[in-house]
Amino acid sequence: MNDAEIKQMCLQLTETSKAAYLTTIDAEGYPHTTAMLNLRNSETWPKLVPLFSENQEEYKVIFTTNTSSRKVQHIRANPKVSVYYCNPDDWKGFMVNGDIEIVSDPELKRSLWHDGWENYYPMGFDDPDHTVLRLIPKLGKGWTGSNTFDFSLGD
Amino acid sequence: MNDAEIKQMCLQLTETSKAAYLTTIDAEGYPHTTAMLNLRNSETWPKLVPLFSENQEEYKVIFTTNTSSRKVQHIRANPKVSVYYCNPDDWKGFMVNGDIEIVSDPELKRSLWHDGWENYYPMGFDDPDHTVLRLIPKLGKGWTGSNTFDFSLGD
Repeated sequence: MNDAEIKQMCLQLTETSKAAYLTTIDAEGYPHTTAMLNLRNSETWPKLVPLFSENQEEYKVIFTTNTSSRKVQHIRANPKVSVYYCNPDDWKGFMVNGDIEIVSDPELKRSLWHDGWENYYPMGFDDPDHTVLRLIPKLGKGWTGSNTFDFSLGD
Repeated sequence: MNDAEIKQMCLQLTETSKAAYLTTIDAEGYPHTTAMLNLRNSETWPKLVPLFSENQEEYKVIFTTNTSSRKVQHIRANPKVSVYYCNPDDWKGFMVNGDIEIVSDPELKRSLWHDGWENYYPMGFDDPDHTVLRLIPKLGKGWTGSNTFDFSLGD
């Protein structure tokens, strides 16, 4: 694969993976991995496609989660995370990492909101237990099915 | 789910997931996640089932990888890792973490060996580029599809 094909593969993985695997680091330095809703999946979340089409941030990751979750506790103390997308059927995988931020912007929370999320956040988009996380990655890295690759992102 | 059902779900995930997602930590403290062959998958690797049936180490994880890989570099400097198993179709997930060790025992390398691995390690099971990693986890943690759980493992 040339660089353009690799980039296409990476973006496609981020747009088709059902889950994104988020890893945070706890107070003792151990990683913790968990499956998150992949809001970049264009079939599951078509309303959000424009949010991820902004050119300067094409590998941006956004998650919603509970403020009370342990991953948010980890991130408050240590923002270093990785996010992994994978198609295990053909072994293609793509990872980004960097420092994730906790977003307080109510407009972003409102624009992400979908009917049914009241099950998780009963008070709606501005529920205090509704936290939005945003990662502008620094590094992209992965496996084409036959080769490794990596590239710098961001600053 | 009660504790026995959770345990059954966890072991089943480790025995059915095609890939296991290994996260190591680099010199700057950033996590790196990659899909690994899940040698606990009993359908893909039936010869290895007895290796994972020893009672005291029922959540043991074993990987084979290239000595020259960056994940081995990371582990030499920092053995703290997580390993995640997931069925994204029903959102069940199970993670273990702890300190992973690089195993030099040639008998273990020989017992793991499968025809075809010459593609990765041309000199066979004792190829200097063939590294075996073993994790006896300290923590198990996951999501049943509707609830979180965690339990201590090991010492």
